Amino acid sequence: MITTIQNKQIKQIMKLKKNARERRKQQLFLVEGIRMFTEIPEQYLYKVYASEDFYKEHQAVFEGMEVELVSDQVMKEISDTMTPQGVLALVRMLEYSLEDLLQQENPLLLVLENLQDPGNLGTILRTGEGAGINGIIMSRETVDIYNPKVTRSTMGSIFRVPFVYVDDLFEVIKMMKDRNITTYAAHLNGTDYTRESYTSGTAFLIGNEGNGLTDELTDNAQKKIKIPMCGRVESLNAAMASGLLVYEARRQRQGVD
Amino acid sequence: MITTIQNKQIKQIMKLKKNARERRKQQLFLVEGIRMFTEIPEQYLYKVYASEDFYKEHQAVFEGMEVELVSDQVMKEISDTMTPQGVLALVRMLEYSLEDLLQQENPLLLVLENLQDPGNLGTILRTGEGAGINGIIMSRETVDIYNPKVTRSTMGSIFRVPFVYVDDLFEVIKMMKDRNITTYAAHLNGTDYTRESYTSGTAFLIGNEGNGLTDELTDNAQKKIKIPMCGRVESLNAAMASGLLVYEARRQRQGVD
Repeated sequence: MITTIQNKQIKQIMKLKKNARERRKQQLFLVEGIRMFTEIPEQYLYKVYASEDFYKEHQAVFEGMEVELVSDQVMKEISDTMTPQGVLALVRMLEYSLEDLLQQENPLLLVLENLQDPGNLGTILRTGEGAGINGIIMSRETVDIYNPKVTRSTMGSIFRVPFVYVDDLFEVIKMMKDRNITTYAAHLNGTDYTRESYTSGTAFLIGNEGNGLTDELTDNAQKKIKIPMCGRVESLNAAMASGLLVYEARRQRQGVD
Repeated sequence: MITTIQNKQIKQIMKLKKNARERRKQQLFLVEGIRMFTEIPEQYLYKVYASEDFYKEHQAVFEGMEVELVSDQVMKEISDTMTPQGVLALVRMLEYSLEDLLQQENPLLLVLENLQDPGNLGTILRTGEGAGINGIIMSRETVDIYNPKVTRSTMGSIFRVPFVYVDDLFEVIKMMKDRNITTYAAHLNGTDYTRESYTSGTAFLIGNEGNGLTDELTDNAQKKIKIPMCGRVESLNAAMASGLLVYEARRQRQGVD
């Protein structure tokens, strides 16, 4: 049992928790808690850590696995939450290519430009999976999807929704046009989002929380849409806007009126 | 200028910040930041505090107002945020009656049962205003709407969306039935939410984040609806679910599609 944070493995985990660059270097990220742990696809599981009490209580979950036991104190240090659940895993990064995402038939995609809030990104993945999206494409400046706060708030969707970071969103928009995927930018002068049809290949462009989509990206999109707002509301939360758009697409694709 | 947190007013503010009971006793709550400050309806404004620098920079905003200046240190103590913006107001509680909310023509209402997350409640108010809802009815156990974290995340909607806390949601459902307002509970065995019509009086019942709606309340609702979820998503965030429902009602009421 590991009982000190001076342990080499523990030091490695603490780096992975805090640092996106370290995660990329090692091609590993952290997953915590029993719910998320049971969702990890076997081939991506790299190493499992558990507190002694937790291990004893949940032996069935760990059947056939090599588990490194750590003291409660050490678990508290490596956990990203105030009240650690007792299990933490190192997981290999998931790999998708842009080509995989774009070559699906009539895909429903989200394109995120510089989103910064981990909770928003997590909610977007979770809601996106619920609506049946085929993937998420993010600008390099978007918050790291392997940030423990993001992975936690996806509630497992990170393992099921394909995603990719790209250097150049303009290039992506161009590639989409070549493949008959229509790109939609949220804009105050757009048409009501419920008046467009999303039954063919569709990509919604979602902007940064504070600034919205950049003018450059908006101008490159094929169509402008808006979510109408009553009262004095000027904008909706980025995750909420994404959810409304993908669920409207889902509604149309189900053939529901 | 107030320079010490021993000051009697400052002590009062710190109580109001932390304690829902104290807020109810004094019938006052805190509003922070320039954006929210400018949204306060004049008749509700009770007292204004500003840091000296902020006051000098924004004199036009304070025209005709009595402003109590406080030191930066004091502002930091009374603020609920890490980086105070320099203005904080005491505001009189808004007063609505259940009768006001129910007697509107074909109202669109949200009923919240024991929601606990301040950010969720704030987002529900903001998105609700955007969709044009007529009010929010909350069980007494729901998080305090005057909690600084809630008011902040409403981005001003707290001043524009009528709301009321009630002791008995069952009684409310009964009153709604008498007024031809249909009550809809989210439930796994419900019909697809986009297949119901919400053009007449409509109230959506939204449950607690962890547990969803109680069975008792679900059984009392007139209709059960569900938001379909693909993949392995079992539930959506409470604010997201509310947003999808009220925006579907908005879509139908606008006569779109």
